Amino acid sequence: MASADCVVAVDVGGTSVKAAVVDARGTANAAVTVPTSRGAEQVADQVAALADELTDAVQARGPAPVALGVVTPGLVDEHSGTVLLAGNLGWRDAPMRALVEKRVDLPVAFGHDVRAGGLAEAVLGAGRDAGDHLFLAIGTGIAGAVMLGGTAYSGGGYAGEIGHIVVEPGGDACACGARGCLEATASARAIARRYALRTGERVAAAEVAARAVAGDVHAVAVWDAAVIGLAEALRVCLCVLAPELIVVGGGLATSGDQLLEPLRARLAERLTFQRVPHVVAAELGERAGCLGAGLLAWHAIGREVRP
Amino acid sequence: MASADCVVAVDVGGTSVKAAVVDARGTANAAVTVPTSRGAEQVADQVAALADELTDAVQARGPAPVALGVVTPGLVDEHSGTVLLAGNLGWRDAPMRALVEKRVDLPVAFGHDVRAGGLAEAVLGAGRDAGDHLFLAIGTGIAGAVMLGGTAYSGGGYAGEIGHIVVEPGGDACACGARGCLEATASARAIARRYALRTGERVAAAEVAARAVAGDVHAVAVWDAAVIGLAEALRVCLCVLAPELIVVGGGLATSGDQLLEPLRARLAERLTFQRVPHVVAAELGERAGCLGAGLLAWHAIGREVRP
Repeated sequence: MASADCVVAVDVGGTSVKAAVVDARGTANAAVTVPTSRGAEQVADQVAALADELTDAVQARGPAPVALGVVTPGLVDEHSGTVLLAGNLGWRDAPMRALVEKRVDLPVAFGHDVRAGGLAEAVLGAGRDAGDHLFLAIGTGIAGAVMLGGTAYSGGGYAGEIGHIVVEPGGDACACGARGCLEATASARAIARRYALRTGERVAAAEVAARAVAGDVHAVAVWDAAVIGLAEALRVCLCVLAPELIVVGGGLATSGDQLLEPLRARLAERLTFQRVPHVVAAELGERAGCLGAGLLAWHAIGREVRP
Repeated sequence: MASADCVVAVDVGGTSVKAAVVDARGTANAAVTVPTSRGAEQVADQVAALADELTDAVQARGPAPVALGVVTPGLVDEHSGTVLLAGNLGWRDAPMRALVEKRVDLPVAFGHDVRAGGLAEAVLGAGRDAGDHLFLAIGTGIAGAVMLGGTAYSGGGYAGEIGHIVVEPGGDACACGARGCLEATASARAIARRYALRTGERVAAAEVAARAVAGDVHAVAVWDAAVIGLAEALRVCLCVLAPELIVVGGGLATSGDQLLEPLRARLAERLTFQRVPHVVAAELGERAGCLGAGLLAWHAIGREVRP
């Protein structure tokens, strides 16, 4: 399939930019990762440079890319093509779609990294053929994608902010300014911070998970609080939208059943009349956002992706 | 317009059944209310009798009704036409649509009372031209209608259960079996119960609201807890779906600004990055469910309602 059509897909993160070409079956090739520049103009330059680089790479073997998709974190308004606010990048009201359009000769699709990740899981991963469902990405932060009718519901950029549901009233300060948000309780950053506060030792969330299994009482307490917070937040989502499937992705999901088994149990014990959802691990890992950017690019030119 | 087409609309409640004919502009006429029978078969008999009565009434002046819409409380699966569970009615897995279809010679639409009420407000009331929004009905219980793309999102009958978001962890027992649900904190029944617990005096929720304004410390405490609970639950809805409009209906909404002003304030002080929604009173009052049943009937025969 070396001569198949493809699109350029770029996932802008707080620390790195991941890019690849994605074909019409949703397969990523020629993946490349570079450190994220500062400033929206500079990142748009990076996106254009990556597009050139990938175009050169694929043109040696077949047709040039036919579109470009770019996704970013933060509050993203797909409709206006704007990053309203991205704390990790230091951006406010950055017209990202227009900045990229100015620099490339391709149709440009623009979206939110987690909603794009949710779309990728819905088309290519754990949400295949699932109908409406919820995608939850637990990494440095926590965000969700409310998958309705095959697309991620945006709410003007403000929907899916599962990480800012309060699960510990009066609890730890969250970056958003509130207290006790899920993100301040159960994100990888929060888990590492809470464990360090108890022990003075700075280790990654995955290590806290491993130590919890080994019986470290501090690790058990921190991990259990995170799982309970997640169960509380998911219970709320069940009350509002009643998804029958919840796909858990992001870095913390690599803990697999160490996370999902207690989460299923804590969630089930909190439900009364609600349907018990399937809670499953995402399948695409760190590639989800980039693949989602590729899907958005294909959709922007009216093409469906069929794996 | 005496000769205009119309539909029969029936809103089955825990204590009374409201029926009317609704024309293609969404105007209700010939309204009649009867006490609710026990048992799904008996209620289906009532619905059929009301349809006959209303048909006779309108046929004296114009064409007979062209469809029938019926709505009920509880967990309602519109897709299968079933009341999965209705505590107030004592029903479980009642095939309401089929029971009514057996008894009448009209196309039958079937739905959920609060989702139908939300639809009525969306088409004829406070949600007119609003796009996606949230309808919240606060009465004996609390339920919501998530209005997306002009219809109420059902989630197999389980969506919109805003009343069962936990707002007081470890709080009062809720009828659903959980503790601290919004419904156990802020429904008209909960407000009356909590005031009676403090004072020994049994008064309606509206009277508690009036006494709170007059400075009764017990009324102030109960009313404030209800408002805070509502603000907590709405904050959660903003995190998940980010509605820009919240329409508050149900019996408690008749308290008007006594409810909505402190609710807006309590909600605003809980928001950080989220958009502050418009929180407005419903416009159709107790007629919303019946009007919504009428809209469902019109939609079932492929007709739009234009006020």
